[in-house]
Amino acid sequence: MNKNLSGRGPIIKEMIITPIAITDPPLLNAAGLHAPYALRTIVELVTEDGIIGISEIPGNDAINSSLAEAAKIIIGKDVYQLGKLQQALNAHFGTDTSKDRGDAPWDQRKLVHVFSALEVACLDIIGKVVNRPIVDLLGGKMRDAVPFAAYLFYKYEGAGGDLGFGKEKYATGWDAARQEAAIDPKGIVAQAKAMCKHYGFQSIKLKGGAFEPEQEVAAMFALHEEFGDQMPLRFDPNAIWKPETALKYGKEMEPILEYLEDPVRGQEEMAKLRKLIKTPLATNMCTTSFDEIPSSIRLGAEDIILSDHHFWGGLKASMELAKLCSTFDRKLSMHSNSHLGISLAAMVHLGAALPEVPYALDTHYPWQSEEVIIGGSVVFENGAVEVPSGPGLGVELDRKALAKLHQQYLDSGLSKRDDQIEMRKVHANWTFQKVRW
Amino acid sequence: MNKNLSGRGPIIKEMIITPIAITDPPLLNAAGLHAPYALRTIVELVTEDGIIGISEIPGNDAINSSLAEAAKIIIGKDVYQLGKLQQALNAHFGTDTSKDRGDAPWDQRKLVHVFSALEVACLDIIGKVVNRPIVDLLGGKMRDAVPFAAYLFYKYEGAGGDLGFGKEKYATGWDAARQEAAIDPKGIVAQAKAMCKHYGFQSIKLKGGAFEPEQEVAAMFALHEEFGDQMPLRFDPNAIWKPETALKYGKEMEPILEYLEDPVRGQEEMAKLRKLIKTPLATNMCTTSFDEIPSSIRLGAEDIILSDHHFWGGLKASMELAKLCSTFDRKLSMHSNSHLGISLAAMVHLGAALPEVPYALDTHYPWQSEEVIIGGSVVFENGAVEVPSGPGLGVELDRKALAKLHQQYLDSGLSKRDDQIEMRKVHANWTFQKVRW
Repeated sequence: MNKNLSGRGPIIKEMIITPIAITDPPLLNAAGLHAPYALRTIVELVTEDGIIGISEIPGNDAINSSLAEAAKIIIGKDVYQLGKLQQALNAHFGTDTSKDRGDAPWDQRKLVHVFSALEVACLDIIGKVVNRPIVDLLGGKMRDAVPFAAYLFYKYEGAGGDLGFGKEKYATGWDAARQEAAIDPKGIVAQAKAMCKHYGFQSIKLKGGAFEPEQEVAAMFALHEEFGDQMPLRFDPNAIWKPETALKYGKEMEPILEYLEDPVRGQEEMAKLRKLIKTPLATNMCTTSFDEIPSSIRLGAEDIILSDHHFWGGLKASMELAKLCSTFDRKLSMHSNSHLGISLAAMVHLGAALPEVPYALDTHYPWQSEEVIIGGSVVFENGAVEVPSGPGLGVELDRKALAKLHQQYLDSGLSKRDDQIEMRKVHANWTFQKVRW
Repeated sequence: MNKNLSGRGPIIKEMIITPIAITDPPLLNAAGLHAPYALRTIVELVTEDGIIGISEIPGNDAINSSLAEAAKIIIGKDVYQLGKLQQALNAHFGTDTSKDRGDAPWDQRKLVHVFSALEVACLDIIGKVVNRPIVDLLGGKMRDAVPFAAYLFYKYEGAGGDLGFGKEKYATGWDAARQEAAIDPKGIVAQAKAMCKHYGFQSIKLKGGAFEPEQEVAAMFALHEEFGDQMPLRFDPNAIWKPETALKYGKEMEPILEYLEDPVRGQEEMAKLRKLIKTPLATNMCTTSFDEIPSSIRLGAEDIILSDHHFWGGLKASMELAKLCSTFDRKLSMHSNSHLGISLAAMVHLGAALPEVPYALDTHYPWQSEEVIIGGSVVFENGAVEVPSGPGLGVELDRKALAKLHQQYLDSGLSKRDDQIEMRKVHANWTFQKVRW
């Protein structure tokens, strides 16, 4: 019997919650318009030994105050005891969070975000303690680099941030292209060319739901014309289409789409459409939690679940979701929101550990012009990000940048994401509709 | 950016495969009679730094030669790269192993055993390197001790091993009781009393399928009479009952059973019966792999999956199975075969990490009179085993015991488990029937 008892692990002594606002261009989607700043929250867990684990999640007042409550639960805890942490958080916050996801394209639940923030930071600490990258804590590296897709948006001209709808005068390359308007097929193709040139992406997704279906479908055909059959294309109207619209345009786009994301709202409608068109259906809106898996399987709601560790309760839960998907012959890929390099690093570790990555993952990263990690923007090569090889996440906070982005948050006056409010600054009476066309 | 690159982890330099034979009493089951020895295989993985990880799996010639093949794959590999190891083993052995599970109560597949052996030994190494018990590599300890059930068997008189059907003269307590015959309700009750007295078990399972249903059901009622409503009772005829038999006796036992295990053969029959009786149905025979989960869910084949990390591809896969079960409102508990303390330690680490343990787990451990770990037999307190607190599995090989048990294997002449052959030594024309009564 080994006498060297392995006792308490690194113990959390402190939790630091730093809301930040990051410059975000005026991107359009089914729910309206991106504000000049996107909100994220940076979490730091500090151990008794002074080791710091970090994570990044979508930020808003509700999430931030839940994080503050969670601090009382996690302080004094061993970073390895993630099961008990989950149990304690469930007991405190309640587990039935699937109902408050909301109708917007983004996920408005709190507990999954909070647990994801804590889990990633704990894994960062564990990785640092054992001197291994997080990917190795998830079963090891299945690939050296993780492929992402070009994520195109309809957008108004503008850089976001202080400039709002203005443009930064001396920008060049993608930094300039990022600021251009894209409100028609031609603008989308130009955006795609600039983004792919800069990042080397080898798949393209267009976020739709902003304009009438005919115009957006025309953009997809324009992309196909520009990039040819070799470039996998996806389209995502964020469930704003009526079933008949989805059927009509789904059929039309069959020859050119790799997959069609959330064409309609709800598992029932997705399941009906899925029987009628050949293109695989993907979702991050109709099946968004483990609670919704049984009905998804029973109905056959989708082919591809676009997971997001921020929404599915962390990296280990995402690995469990991957097993669940492979068991039921679903594919797993990845959803994103506006994010910086800490979230990206977590996504890359997860993407590297997944048994298979059949589709290039989503990322909003090209739209962000700021960073909060040391070293600045993460490098993409041929559309892929190399798995960080340092311990834990392999990225570290740039404290000067963090302070600046936090000040930006304070100055922004924003407390939550509301794309409708932003849209009304442009179109006074604009109203979000769950199903519009 | 952290410059301290976390490079190659502990690398496997050597794999040592040691088949052993352990004394096993003449236990009866649907497939015949236990031989005087049960075969297990002890696997040691040795790293370049001389760290040794161990594991224990069911042993037979086919598994042992597959392990020897697997050695060529794992040598030179980093212990953290379990995903790639699985991929390499799948590529070498083929993944479609669900078909060769066999009709016997035990699982005759090779790849799941092999992967489980390698995974547990790798986790033992990782635990030793990072100075944490395996439970912490699975998400942390949800409980300090893991409850097991008394596992009763019909049996002939005898101690097994060298003594065969003979008895060891000077044994006392459970060591003596273990050698007594139990071929009727009275014998089963006596066995239960002796076993529960010694181990403090707080649940009881009877392995049936050996005698006519009426007699075995009478034994369950005798147990209920002896132990009262407070003692949860389970019964397992190993799928040897006809549907009408299962319905009749299932109904009869409704008031006294916690759950009924594999009353009938196959998911379809299980699903039919499940609609007709109130007692939850458990299985380790109708749903035995991730491949069989979709039809299990579609049909509603069982309430409880009795997992076994040796059969489901290791400890991490078992955690994934737990998530899958909770997602589909199934309960998870644990199956066992004749085993020693290395398997027991792995079962305890898994049992400690599981989000919930709604039922005391199965273990054959009370039937084994030998050990291969330092310190001898594992202690049970109130039917539960305390989670080892040492790094890794927290148990270490007793090399003298290993050598003795290996010699016992060589002397036994056994190459695989065949309970029919053993039964024929007692009843010359006895033949295994998948469905008998």
